Amino acid sequence: MKKKFEMKKKLVIIALGGNALLKNGQKGSIDEQNLNVRETLHGLYPIIKEGHHLIITHGNGPQVGFILLKNDAGEQVYGIPQVPLDVAVADTQSEIGYLIQSELFSLLHQNGIDREIISTNTMVQVSPDDPAFQNPTKRIGKTYYDKAEVQKLEREKGWTFKQETKNGKTGWRRVVPSPQPVDIISKNTLKVLAESGAIVVAVGGGGVPVSIEGDTMHGQEAVIDKDLASALLAEQIGADQFIILTDVPYVYLNYGTDAQQALEKITTSQAKDLMNKAAFGEGNMAPKIRAAVNFIEANGGEVLITDLEGLKSGKGTKIIV
Amino acid sequence: MKKKFEMKKKLVIIALGGNALLKNGQKGSIDEQNLNVRETLHGLYPIIKEGHHLIITHGNGPQVGFILLKNDAGEQVYGIPQVPLDVAVADTQSEIGYLIQSELFSLLHQNGIDREIISTNTMVQVSPDDPAFQNPTKRIGKTYYDKAEVQKLEREKGWTFKQETKNGKTGWRRVVPSPQPVDIISKNTLKVLAESGAIVVAVGGGGVPVSIEGDTMHGQEAVIDKDLASALLAEQIGADQFIILTDVPYVYLNYGTDAQQALEKITTSQAKDLMNKAAFGEGNMAPKIRAAVNFIEANGGEVLITDLEGLKSGKGTKIIV
Repeated sequence: MKKKFEMKKKLVIIALGGNALLKNGQKGSIDEQNLNVRETLHGLYPIIKEGHHLIITHGNGPQVGFILLKNDAGEQVYGIPQVPLDVAVADTQSEIGYLIQSELFSLLHQNGIDREIISTNTMVQVSPDDPAFQNPTKRIGKTYYDKAEVQKLEREKGWTFKQETKNGKTGWRRVVPSPQPVDIISKNTLKVLAESGAIVVAVGGGGVPVSIEGDTMHGQEAVIDKDLASALLAEQIGADQFIILTDVPYVYLNYGTDAQQALEKITTSQAKDLMNKAAFGEGNMAPKIRAAVNFIEANGGEVLITDLEGLKSGKGTKIIV
Repeated sequence: MKKKFEMKKKLVIIALGGNALLKNGQKGSIDEQNLNVRETLHGLYPIIKEGHHLIITHGNGPQVGFILLKNDAGEQVYGIPQVPLDVAVADTQSEIGYLIQSELFSLLHQNGIDREIISTNTMVQVSPDDPAFQNPTKRIGKTYYDKAEVQKLEREKGWTFKQETKNGKTGWRRVVPSPQPVDIISKNTLKVLAESGAIVVAVGGGGVPVSIEGDTMHGQEAVIDKDLASALLAEQIGADQFIILTDVPYVYLNYGTDAQQALEKITTSQAKDLMNKAAFGEGNMAPKIRAAVNFIEANGGEVLITDLEGLKSGKGTKIIV
């Protein structure tokens, strides 16, 4: 048999940000979400067209919030038992996965591309010893609970609450831990899938958090940062490129001030220096930079952080070894 | 290189019935469902142990009902837009998929078996010309709507309702079409997955019904019979064996009468004769027999219809060419 020279396909992982699915001010109907997903996928088309092996990951911020509220309402109105947070995260994986699959199917077929698309439910291992479990900080669900509800839910479900004041309103919100991802469950199969040529949707909402004690798996009521989980997947299966899609074209220094400065290319050691100086917002860009550094230090490769427009026009912050 | 003699692995598809997940009289909490899934998987363990390629499919009857009620309650209480039925079916795929994955992970690890498990979101194509769309018969959601709600929902959402009387109560229920499955979307990837050695969860709830018009995919507010969709998958990827797990050990003639007779082995032509004589309940055993016949006629192979106990003790109705 003659040997064929074939360009090796790159394995690319793209993490979609929250506004790829739902934009500020939208109510969250499926029609809105479908349109947003369609727009996002059109923006990704240049990368899809290149034919590389591709895994798409995504957040689930508003969607898991809706499911928690529906849970609460379903118990109130119809007495349906609420599902725990890990199950709610699972719900959002196929809900959003289906939207992506369906819009991507149309996009591929309209462009004569014959690739299958598969959306998976990904579980991600966390450690019960992660300090996040002692200090839950991630706010989720209803705004706001009142004191009586809080006492009842603390007692009956063991939930934790924090008081907050926002836009002149004060109330209690549920807080849950955001532990570090330790292992992507079934990662080898995700790699097989991507290398089979299918476009894969995985690690939705950062994955369903589970712990493994002895030989037994337990769901955890927590949420995992989707960029950190995506970076771990990228590292564990040896991705060549990791793209974090967000709502700004660059990572900036002094973001939102007169001295704002776009970063075009930085090394991981520069990125770590800047993180030590708290140059990036903890609720925003810092976890993305941390995810990028984790991936590159463990694996090599490069990370691009940008928005849809940046992706189309070749802009964005490159993080390199 | 020396040739190795290796027993070819069979590709087995097992369709789990409703009571594999939730039993009559249970409220539907996740704890109950986890226990039921664990019991079911223990029952399947002899088959899992054989190491064959394995795809597990499942129903979603009670779960999709809960999600529809939570949708309704979420709109009432918090004004959250309801998701259409196709999205609700998608939700149940990763919800149930996660329960199966998590319990199966523990079962495999407790037995020292190193196989990954992957749960997928499966879309199934239906034809918009399917006569079922002109005559929706499948009852879903709230029991019951009153006349005023019905008129509002018919007008605003285009839903269809039928009046029913049950246990002395009369009211309106939403009915949706149950069209025939035409094609399992991404079936080749499901085959690749199963042959990679992973245990695959797929076609949950009969799959998310979609139509393809030109190059564009559209979700359909319908439900697909899970045994028919599983049989189509079995046929399209050339499964060797298709097992339908239900709540009785055999298919019976004259079921529930003094003349009840268990069928141990029947051919497809015997099965078709009996179906023509309406020997099997249309809401119950008839779709399973039809699914079995479809699979065998298109593909060869054999079908086993039984319950968990039957599976353990080698009972069950075998349907053969």
